[in-house]
Amino acid sequence: MEPGTARIAVDLLGGDDAPAVVVDGALRAVRADPDLHLLLVGPTEVAAAVTDALTPAQRARTTVRPVRAAAGPAHHAPRADSTVRAAVAAIRDGAADALVSAGSTGATVSAAALGFGRWADVRRPALVATLPAVAGPVVLLDVGGSLEPRPLTLARHAVLGAAYAAVAHAVDRPRVGLLSVGTEAGKGDRPRKAADALLTAASLPCGARYVGLVEGYDVALGARADVVVTDGFTGNVLLKAIEGAYAMAGGPPAGGGAPRAAALLGVAGTVVVCHGAAGAEDVASGIALAAHLWRRGASDRVRALLDGAAVGSPAVDRIDEVRP
Amino acid sequence: MEPGTARIAVDLLGGDDAPAVVVDGALRAVRADPDLHLLLVGPTEVAAAVTDALTPAQRARTTVRPVRAAAGPAHHAPRADSTVRAAVAAIRDGAADALVSAGSTGATVSAAALGFGRWADVRRPALVATLPAVAGPVVLLDVGGSLEPRPLTLARHAVLGAAYAAVAHAVDRPRVGLLSVGTEAGKGDRPRKAADALLTAASLPCGARYVGLVEGYDVALGARADVVVTDGFTGNVLLKAIEGAYAMAGGPPAGGGAPRAAALLGVAGTVVVCHGAAGAEDVASGIALAAHLWRRGASDRVRALLDGAAVGSPAVDRIDEVRP
Repeated sequence: MEPGTARIAVDLLGGDDAPAVVVDGALRAVRADPDLHLLLVGPTEVAAAVTDALTPAQRARTTVRPVRAAAGPAHHAPRADSTVRAAVAAIRDGAADALVSAGSTGATVSAAALGFGRWADVRRPALVATLPAVAGPVVLLDVGGSLEPRPLTLARHAVLGAAYAAVAHAVDRPRVGLLSVGTEAGKGDRPRKAADALLTAASLPCGARYVGLVEGYDVALGARADVVVTDGFTGNVLLKAIEGAYAMAGGPPAGGGAPRAAALLGVAGTVVVCHGAAGAEDVASGIALAAHLWRRGASDRVRALLDGAAVGSPAVDRIDEVRP
Repeated sequence: MEPGTARIAVDLLGGDDAPAVVVDGALRAVRADPDLHLLLVGPTEVAAAVTDALTPAQRARTTVRPVRAAAGPAHHAPRADSTVRAAVAAIRDGAADALVSAGSTGATVSAAALGFGRWADVRRPALVATLPAVAGPVVLLDVGGSLEPRPLTLARHAVLGAAYAAVAHAVDRPRVGLLSVGTEAGKGDRPRKAADALLTAASLPCGARYVGLVEGYDVALGARADVVVTDGFTGNVLLKAIEGAYAMAGGPPAGGGAPRAAALLGVAGTVVVCHGAAGAEDVASGIALAAHLWRRGASDRVRALLDGAAVGSPAVDRIDEVRP
């Protein structure tokens, strides 16, 4: 754990099993990290369920921002008076450093994009999950930020993933692979073929190098790449398939299973999205991830690293817009 | 094992590690199944490596068709004088009942479509893999037959998968799910949303029922569906991700891991495709699968079941063709 205070705004009403698992997750997080402060965003009585269970010293590291409304239906922009919007506003006001929500991904991404703004050269924010593999972490993106496979989005997410692996996980010169159905050049559907060409010509940050096409095995095993790039549809179902396989196999491997918390990259703030079905342990790990990212200055550092990267061209941009 | 002779044509030159693993796989298959006959399609000296290792009684269940050429590059139609084309020709001549190849999937699909013809109402053949789950088998398709997600292809593959589950695995009234990023209606990318509408209105064979959207977990766990439908890109990377997860977890669960042999549906013949990196055990299991499908008359029975199914409309067909 890096040193330094981290003040995390927690959306008490986000998640299928909220507020119970969020309360439990917040308690675990406060107890585990003595430099963690929580801004509890939600109904007063829910926040009290956290604070009442803490020692006075722990309680001193919590603040309550009373908000009564949840984000609302998943397919709509979150209500202005919702917990997730209030949590974003709290960070803008300087009352917290980072946001964690297990609510609808769409609502969180929307609230963050509205409140923080997007990075200028990242049109589609990406959700980034980190899996523990034998040789080290594997960064998988996108796991659900944007679902349609677009070549330029894939190439830009490769840049994001490389920077994230270096900044968040201290991976030296990350190997970046593009997920496809085989490793030979030319394998894959049309978006993959076009993205492969873009990535072969791209300049990646942090000494990262593009290693070409990788396969499904590589996401869990990490043998061929430190960063695996795919579209949000494929990444999402893949991550859940790996989680299902670990459940079938009797439990995750030593070192950890499929993560249920992912970092949102592409907005000007530190945001962690937990799986809607997250349990208390998942929420606690999401809070720990947000604190880790804040302490490393990950969001700003990843953003700064994009300036040196070069992907695609205006002509490719236009193709990408017209033919998704 | 069903009773009855099954005569399987084996492509001795297909696969990354051919001919060694194919020879070993053929030996295992002959020894395991006393009613199995093999037509060994390949160079005489390779076939001799099989026959020389068998007892005289086992050897009597093998025939050799000498062919010297492999299929050639993966992205081209297989050579007319190749082992995979010769194996298809042998089935057309009545010298064998079914084909197994661990060569390039594209070459095998191409050879089978050329030699056997496609089923009239299946434009895109599907590769079908069966995973062992807790409650029973899970049929996953497509795992690499056609890579682009098209709504009508997804819906038609749902029909194929339902018929296959009933015929090949005796699943009673199969539950058919469409793989997406959440289970709530409306979750997913554009092809999934369109396919969901088609499937809601579809008439499925064998008393199968469409259960709506399922997630990655369900492929390994089988809790929500017996048949999981997705595009060939997603299915392929998913299957390999599950295989990688089992390797990370220290081995596959009791009952078996991710299969490395898949049935090809949509051509008028019994064809099993093994993974290019198949080992001897995988090749043997592919041969056993081909024999199983032949003994059940699976190909003809699945084909016949399609007549009673109704998916889409001519208008949808046109949309599907124009906007993949």
